[in-house]
Amino acid sequence: MANKKIRAAVISYGNIGKAVVQALNAAPDFEIAGVVRRSVANIPAELQGIEVVDSIKKLSNVDVAVICAPTRQCPEYAKQCLDLGISTVDSFDIHTRIPEVYAELDAYAKKSNAASIISAGWDPGSDSMVRALLLAMAPKGITYTNFGPGRSMGHTVCVKSKKGVKDALSITIPLGTSIHRRMVYVELEDGYKLEDVAKDIKSDDYFAHDETHVIQVDSVDALNDVGHGVNLVRKGVSGETQNQNFEFNMSINNPALTGQILVASARAVLKKQPGCYTMIEIAPIDLLPGDKMDLIKSLV
Amino acid sequence: MANKKIRAAVISYGNIGKAVVQALNAAPDFEIAGVVRRSVANIPAELQGIEVVDSIKKLSNVDVAVICAPTRQCPEYAKQCLDLGISTVDSFDIHTRIPEVYAELDAYAKKSNAASIISAGWDPGSDSMVRALLLAMAPKGITYTNFGPGRSMGHTVCVKSKKGVKDALSITIPLGTSIHRRMVYVELEDGYKLEDVAKDIKSDDYFAHDETHVIQVDSVDALNDVGHGVNLVRKGVSGETQNQNFEFNMSINNPALTGQILVASARAVLKKQPGCYTMIEIAPIDLLPGDKMDLIKSLV
Repeated sequence: MANKKIRAAVISYGNIGKAVVQALNAAPDFEIAGVVRRSVANIPAELQGIEVVDSIKKLSNVDVAVICAPTRQCPEYAKQCLDLGISTVDSFDIHTRIPEVYAELDAYAKKSNAASIISAGWDPGSDSMVRALLLAMAPKGITYTNFGPGRSMGHTVCVKSKKGVKDALSITIPLGTSIHRRMVYVELEDGYKLEDVAKDIKSDDYFAHDETHVIQVDSVDALNDVGHGVNLVRKGVSGETQNQNFEFNMSINNPALTGQILVASARAVLKKQPGCYTMIEIAPIDLLPGDKMDLIKSLV
Repeated sequence: MANKKIRAAVISYGNIGKAVVQALNAAPDFEIAGVVRRSVANIPAELQGIEVVDSIKKLSNVDVAVICAPTRQCPEYAKQCLDLGISTVDSFDIHTRIPEVYAELDAYAKKSNAASIISAGWDPGSDSMVRALLLAMAPKGITYTNFGPGRSMGHTVCVKSKKGVKDALSITIPLGTSIHRRMVYVELEDGYKLEDVAKDIKSDDYFAHDETHVIQVDSVDALNDVGHGVNLVRKGVSGETQNQNFEFNMSINNPALTGQILVASARAVLKKQPGCYTMIEIAPIDLLPGDKMDLIKSLV
């Protein structure tokens, strides 16, 4: 008898939701229970054959919900699912609110005998696991996480909110030691001057502390690329031995990697006791399908 | 009240044992229960004030034994400790025997209500965790582990066993895609010719498949350096997205890092249910001291 597949629901269908559906389709151990969207009209071609509904309650036998909604909405969706006894994963990334969301979902999860992994993705997420591992390998020292080159969502949204900006893109450029340059590309509304808009952007707290360049372009859309990168560096001390050097680099398609890690986390969350978790609390093997001893033989 | 410290015994006191004592001394949450050596005469200065005994049975209240013996002796020491209800960590690195040792220690551990982590170090060990994580991030693709530059213990021992070799050192040079060059430095016994010894070495199965250079030197000791390195690369597919690129590099003091990871694993093993584990079954947070929510705040 074949192993029963994990039934996953995908909540919200933007860039990340699309990537999650692709990763679920590629995974040997999952089947898609359905996609939850606000609107069930105009279903995209790639969702043909998949149940599309406007509420998680309309799907049956869901083991885990992969929440792909904007980050602020993640905790609310997670609570709804946990209340139904459905485990959840999300990529909640508002760093300062993690302890509060963690405590809240922990209580919901335990009450319903389900589990939740929050802040799963690449940062927070796999980068967090690497940072924890490097801290264990060299307990004294400094870790620098250098992001990019790639689009910063938060900075882009900030620029778009400025008067006179029709469309915008803020690219993060890593300068090392966690110092970043901001390359801001803007399309302007008629009647606005680059000089004034640039001044407005550079004085915002989002940009005031970084080297920022504002460049006017005809089409922001022509510049869009969902590639991103990380260069994570630690130099530290193992025992009494100084100058231990570690480096983790990646150059990746951002939504594709986020979606893939959410799916791996959806596998892991079902192996956890009731409660809330972040990725540093997950054993790497639990992210993977397949037989335990086969994985040990091939990876250890 | 301060938290009770973890009492660790160090079994065998060579290069790794020394590094483990240093890492235990540097750790905030450990105290050294004692060092177990064959001979308790000629105790080195740095062990003054530490109990040195010839059997683990002579130490009291040991929570965990860090086994620093040569790899072939690790399983035997682990079984002795587990029989006494003492959890163990070791850096057993004979890859083909891991499943067998795992099964054996798993039974011992469960019988005594203790736990054991085998093959903890950097490879196998932290590299295994990175390989598992990268597989989760890009399930299709190839991972290459490139070792060096650094001394290969197995290759060095092989060369030392050859007729005419007084002392030897085999350095592993990474050429990429898991292909390695072997730089072999030999001191010869009187009456032996480099040409003959080199032929003998190159025809050994340890060297026959790699580019190997044998160089005669006056003093192997003058070349010794315990630095080592890794360049671990994966290019693969996340969901349906190709060309996801990942890289993990390190340049480290080999015994210092191995000792540090053994100590981190000694912390983790006490958080596990009875049984045997490898590092890919360990959540990164369990390798670290300190409060869970503080670690989540600083690392996630």
